[in-house]
Amino acid sequence: MSPRRSVAETARTHARLLSEATTIASTDGLEGVTLGGLANATGLSKSGVVRHFASKQELQLQTLEHALDVFKRAVWDPVADRRPGLERLLAICDAWTDYLAGDVFPGGCFLTAVAVEFDAREGPVRDAVQRALHRWLNALAGEARAAIDAGELEASTDPDLLAYELNALALGANQARQLLNDDAAPPRSRALMRQAVLSRRPRS
Amino acid sequence: MSPRRSVAETARTHARLLSEATTIASTDGLEGVTLGGLANATGLSKSGVVRHFASKQELQLQTLEHALDVFKRAVWDPVADRRPGLERLLAICDAWTDYLAGDVFPGGCFLTAVAVEFDAREGPVRDAVQRALHRWLNALAGEARAAIDAGELEASTDPDLLAYELNALALGANQARQLLNDDAAPPRSRALMRQAVLSRRPRS
Repeated sequence: MSPRRSVAETARTHARLLSEATTIASTDGLEGVTLGGLANATGLSKSGVVRHFASKQELQLQTLEHALDVFKRAVWDPVADRRPGLERLLAICDAWTDYLAGDVFPGGCFLTAVAVEFDAREGPVRDAVQRALHRWLNALAGEARAAIDAGELEASTDPDLLAYELNALALGANQARQLLNDDAAPPRSRALMRQAVLSRRPRS
Repeated sequence: MSPRRSVAETARTHARLLSEATTIASTDGLEGVTLGGLANATGLSKSGVVRHFASKQELQLQTLEHALDVFKRAVWDPVADRRPGLERLLAICDAWTDYLAGDVFPGGCFLTAVAVEFDAREGPVRDAVQRALHRWLNALAGEARAAIDAGELEASTDPDLLAYELNALALGANQARQLLNDDAAPPRSRALMRQAVLSRRPRS
């Protein structure tokens, strides 16, 4: 086996471990992901897993990054080319509720789950979750700000408040779909999101 | 010690165990509550704890009931005497966001945390969490329905949709306060809840 082949192999195994860890974490939480459990789930030896992740925390942090990347690919990438402002903000609402309606993770929205799991703890995992949520709320507020600047939303609109409201509606959809098996929840939140945005259009 | 004294003692110990279990669960999840851990936290022997709870599941179910009772005392009891309909619905929004702003549980809203923890699992604990959320959403919708019947909200108001929206705003406040340490979130959600309710008043 050439060294190059070996590097590619290692990268593939690493990606498979992260994908498996994300699946476990979405139902059992990040604390449910252990080096030993991951070895069992993938058929690798525990020492084989340890070669990829020096510690449980390292595994948790990389799993979180992997899940955030999945979210970005599902919700942000499809709208990245849309016109900034109102058009892209509404497209985000659609992509986001599609993501909540789909079964991207078996346990529902990954970030929501780890946010609850780590909100009462201290440490690098909580910090990373916090940063990710801040980044997303800022992206939403930035879109709202672009819409205000373009005159598509009323100048009196509070972009951070609108981002907060959209995020709350996403949380509601995730809880209703995951806990109550309510498949009507994501479209319901989509309608409420659109209404929250469009009610801020300037009165002509 | 008289048998009567012993019964009272047992009840007090039981209540203390449940209170301790609720505190642990609010930060570590219901799966974090174990008979052994509870023994450590209260200084009882493990067999002493087992005398109170036959199984981990029984402990989890009783802990959930205890936490729901705390929620009821914080949010429902203060408004129980208010006039059904708009007045009580707005009073609930106030009591609910006060509860989210307070530190009733160290890990934030207990029901929200266990909803996320158990939404991807099967079994009696998940069923009990599901029933509790249904009951609360129905209580909110019932209040909205009373307000519609009294002509305080527009006849076209969907009471279940309004309940769903209020619940989403509570979830948003809980996440922002617990994960982002944003103390402005509960009053922000209170204002958005009041707006969601009052925007449905009949136009005179």
